[in-house]
Amino acid sequence: MTPGHPSSGRPVLSRRQLLAGSGVATAGLVAAAAGTAGVAAAATSGGGGSDTVPFDGPHQAGIATPEPARLVFAAFDVTTADRAGLVDLLATWSAAAARMAGGRALTGPSGAQAPPPDSGEALDLPPSRLTVTVGFGPSLFDDRFGLADRRPAALVDLPAFPGDALDPRRSHGDLCLQVCADDALVAFHAVRNLTRLALGAATVRYVQVGFGRTASPANGGESPRNLLGFKDGTDNLDPADEAALRTYVWVDERSDQPWMAGGSYLVARRIRIHLDTWDRTTLGHQERTVGRHKVSGAPLGGRREHDPVNLAALDASGTPVIPVDAHIRVASPATNHGQAILRRGYSFADGVDPASGELDAGLFFVCFQKDPRRQFVPIQEHLADQDALAAYLVHTGSGIFACPPGTGPGRTWATGLR
Amino acid sequence: MTPGHPSSGRPVLSRRQLLAGSGVATAGLVAAAAGTAGVAAAATSGGGGSDTVPFDGPHQAGIATPEPARLVFAAFDVTTADRAGLVDLLATWSAAAARMAGGRALTGPSGAQAPPPDSGEALDLPPSRLTVTVGFGPSLFDDRFGLADRRPAALVDLPAFPGDALDPRRSHGDLCLQVCADDALVAFHAVRNLTRLALGAATVRYVQVGFGRTASPANGGESPRNLLGFKDGTDNLDPADEAALRTYVWVDERSDQPWMAGGSYLVARRIRIHLDTWDRTTLGHQERTVGRHKVSGAPLGGRREHDPVNLAALDASGTPVIPVDAHIRVASPATNHGQAILRRGYSFADGVDPASGELDAGLFFVCFQKDPRRQFVPIQEHLADQDALAAYLVHTGSGIFACPPGTGPGRTWATGLR
Repeated sequence: MTPGHPSSGRPVLSRRQLLAGSGVATAGLVAAAAGTAGVAAAATSGGGGSDTVPFDGPHQAGIATPEPARLVFAAFDVTTADRAGLVDLLATWSAAAARMAGGRALTGPSGAQAPPPDSGEALDLPPSRLTVTVGFGPSLFDDRFGLADRRPAALVDLPAFPGDALDPRRSHGDLCLQVCADDALVAFHAVRNLTRLALGAATVRYVQVGFGRTASPANGGESPRNLLGFKDGTDNLDPADEAALRTYVWVDERSDQPWMAGGSYLVARRIRIHLDTWDRTTLGHQERTVGRHKVSGAPLGGRREHDPVNLAALDASGTPVIPVDAHIRVASPATNHGQAILRRGYSFADGVDPASGELDAGLFFVCFQKDPRRQFVPIQEHLADQDALAAYLVHTGSGIFACPPGTGPGRTWATGLR
Repeated sequence: MTPGHPSSGRPVLSRRQLLAGSGVATAGLVAAAAGTAGVAAAATSGGGGSDTVPFDGPHQAGIATPEPARLVFAAFDVTTADRAGLVDLLATWSAAAARMAGGRALTGPSGAQAPPPDSGEALDLPPSRLTVTVGFGPSLFDDRFGLADRRPAALVDLPAFPGDALDPRRSHGDLCLQVCADDALVAFHAVRNLTRLALGAATVRYVQVGFGRTASPANGGESPRNLLGFKDGTDNLDPADEAALRTYVWVDERSDQPWMAGGSYLVARRIRIHLDTWDRTTLGHQERTVGRHKVSGAPLGGRREHDPVNLAALDASGTPVIPVDAHIRVASPATNHGQAILRRGYSFADGVDPASGELDAGLFFVCFQKDPRRQFVPIQEHLADQDALAAYLVHTGSGIFACPPGTGPGRTWATGLR
């Protein structure tokens, strides 16, 4: 039995092949020697080819990484009593996430007399561009783990915003995992197994499944659409623009907490859209509310999606072509002191809201930034006050997390908190 | 403006192209003349090529159709007062579903002063093998619509089974829609717009999102896995085996209700899996519980997934190789009077169960059959009584529906109920 030895005749290395060269029954689960807490030492380079996103790097994957189609976002409450337990959990998670990003099954004590070290539902599936991104919530820096002096000043408690109707069971958390993949089963598998590895150290607080950042052959270069039916992300920061990322996304050495250099701050908002109400508004109203044409995505006054947004343009009667309360105006860097954020949003559909009988669906908004005090917080205060779209939205979940820098030789997710 | 005229330069016809040949702003929404209740007469042949599943046919699509990766299942309570309203709803739905299956946007009164006839989030996306399958629940045949004498005898009220913990908000319904597609946004779009078209005639009762029937390049010919980590569907009926479908799936002319000939009966069960407990059991126990090897999917005693299941085999000590309570034995046609069902299951992950703090995840089981009285009901009674796997499962939702035959010239979903 040679763990990781690929067999022939398959186009993509699956984690089953990476686990075992033979298909013979239970012997396939007898694999590499166990590492920390039942997880083998990370083999971070992966083996899956173009659908593998490298886990290691100066920054965590899943931030300035193209978005695959599926999201599973999970927040956790830490239950272990001391910092050693927390550090052990983060090191274990880091190694396990690296394995899974490489399309490898988790290994550990195995055989017929042990629980399988990997739950198995992704055994036949390729890496599917899996990324796992960890974040630390403000509550992690309370008095439980002696980390109060490690709390970055930028990791603020978010203020209450007008329009918030936050459900505490969909908000906050000591830790978060943002898991993205092209395959929902691969993303779920990662959250399930990381939850399992947390046994005795952390419990899952909430899980949000998202969809919709779907690459389509009919959609070359155009932005995907959200449940408003509008293209979303046209003016987003370009994750390939390294200068913009340095300005707006990556924490640098000037941070009050040097361990955060190379990291970023994640804000997540579960934004329910009142679809029934929205769908009854006219096309003209929808377009004035967003500030763009619905079909083309062009800004009002433009013809194509990526035409420049002219906030100064007036029509023949002297009225702004893009209304003063249009979403794209109120969200624009031009009306937010030049500030911008890197957004990674996914649609969600969580069945029927029992209170209203309407679909409980909307946008699970995730953004990354260098400093929420200058970026998300004032931008959201502006939007909650002036955005015409806010009438159709209610924020039902909220979280803020410090995402440490990337991993590599001698560096795990735990390094900054040791 | 030529509705449906494709523009050049895109590899797949999108519904946006099918809607309008030009990308210019709002004019693209001014399209074909409106038909019944705001939906244009169905153009059922579709235009999307190989990712289009024909809507019309002797049987509804979505039954003996290969399963795409995503499911959105919705049940509805009918609120209209009379049969005419119900028939109008079903005819409207039928035409709209046909359009969407062909990758076409819904049309109707449009322009800047009207609500867009299509909510728009799938405008740029191809048909994505969308299927929409309708079913009629037992409650539709009560005294509201004068349909009591149309109720098929096979459309029984399901009995209570041991292990049921049914949530009425996830169960029953006058109508159901099983919507499957390769793209979650396309599937959601269909349910959202059909819900919207039902305004004043029906309200949505529950929605279940599912995933996991994922085609994988690493998974040629092998069955996908469920959240137990085992391959699921190895012994399922082959939807390409027409003789088996005639025996087990399609209602024939001998039905007490001739309008159901060519139709089938759908049973849906939301089966939560106690993943935390399951994941703590040993590999050997899991394999004895299922009756198959986990990695290969081979039946115990076999080597490959599709090796024959030998229920008679004994080991050296005279013990059955496949235990007497193994799932595959108790579910086998050989122990169920030769009966079988056509399964179409999807995994689900609905966040965290607030009562237990565990993941609320499992299998949304859908099956089709000629007569639930001889198929699902006795098979499930057998499983609930004897299947070792039942210890890890709880059924939290349930529904049974009569799916009418397919559509075509002069035949809509409403035809059997006129």
